[in-house]
Amino acid sequence: MTTKTIPDTHTDLLDAKVASLTTIGSDGGPQSSLVWFLYDDGAVHISLSDARVKTKNLLQRPQVSLMIGDPENPMRYLDIRGSAVVEPDPDYVFADQVGAKYGGADLRSRDQPGDQRLKVTISDPKVYAVKMG
Amino acid sequence: MTTKTIPDTHTDLLDAKVASLTTIGSDGGPQSSLVWFLYDDGAVHISLSDARVKTKNLLQRPQVSLMIGDPENPMRYLDIRGSAVVEPDPDYVFADQVGAKYGGADLRSRDQPGDQRLKVTISDPKVYAVKMG
Repeated sequence: MTTKTIPDTHTDLLDAKVASLTTIGSDGGPQSSLVWFLYDDGAVHISLSDARVKTKNLLQRPQVSLMIGDPENPMRYLDIRGSAVVEPDPDYVFADQVGAKYGGADLRSRDQPGDQRLKVTISDPKVYAVKMG
Repeated sequence: MTTKTIPDTHTDLLDAKVASLTTIGSDGGPQSSLVWFLYDDGAVHISLSDARVKTKNLLQRPQVSLMIGDPENPMRYLDIRGSAVVEPDPDYVFADQVGAKYGGADLRSRDQPGDQRLKVTISDPKVYAVKMG
């Protein structure tokens, strides 16, 4: 039912602009929000500030899922389930790679003084690739 | 940051065809999949068979979230976080209401002999309504 890599039938979805990241809140329940992402080196990466609730969640409870839907066919989607590995990105090196994907957006403009920019990688994923109907 | 009801700015999203339902797996991690849904009486309802993993998950761990995105604007979305309340739907009364929303689909055709059809309601929700950018 799940695979370790993204099957050829669904790799095109990695071109999607946004994906739904789910983290686990302090009450143990899921919380989803839309995020930008970058697929590189066989893994999904996300740039987050440590000021966001989703970041606090995954620092406490690293289990996450990233759902990417097909905008043309709502019955086809990917859910990438794994563990969030967090690395500091103090010089916005990774954030700028993400920004380049999104028309040169500058992620510094989203941060307040004192916020830390982080690179989040979904490691050791189980990939759930679906096409219904 | 969250409200108890869906704000007027986001009620149009309830017309979306699909939503991403996240349940908590046996490992405590999130699992997301796309589902049909019906909004009625101020609550979101989903028709599920008990044969599905997501159903087994929410019967064990009722915390769920339902994310509904704006197909026209990926920066606008709703995340409805709450507890799944499950009722049997042996005569497909609710399943047929869902089918009627989706062009007269017959949800019986998705079930195997012995499967139980259930009506799932997200109760006591916290609604997270976002418009970014």
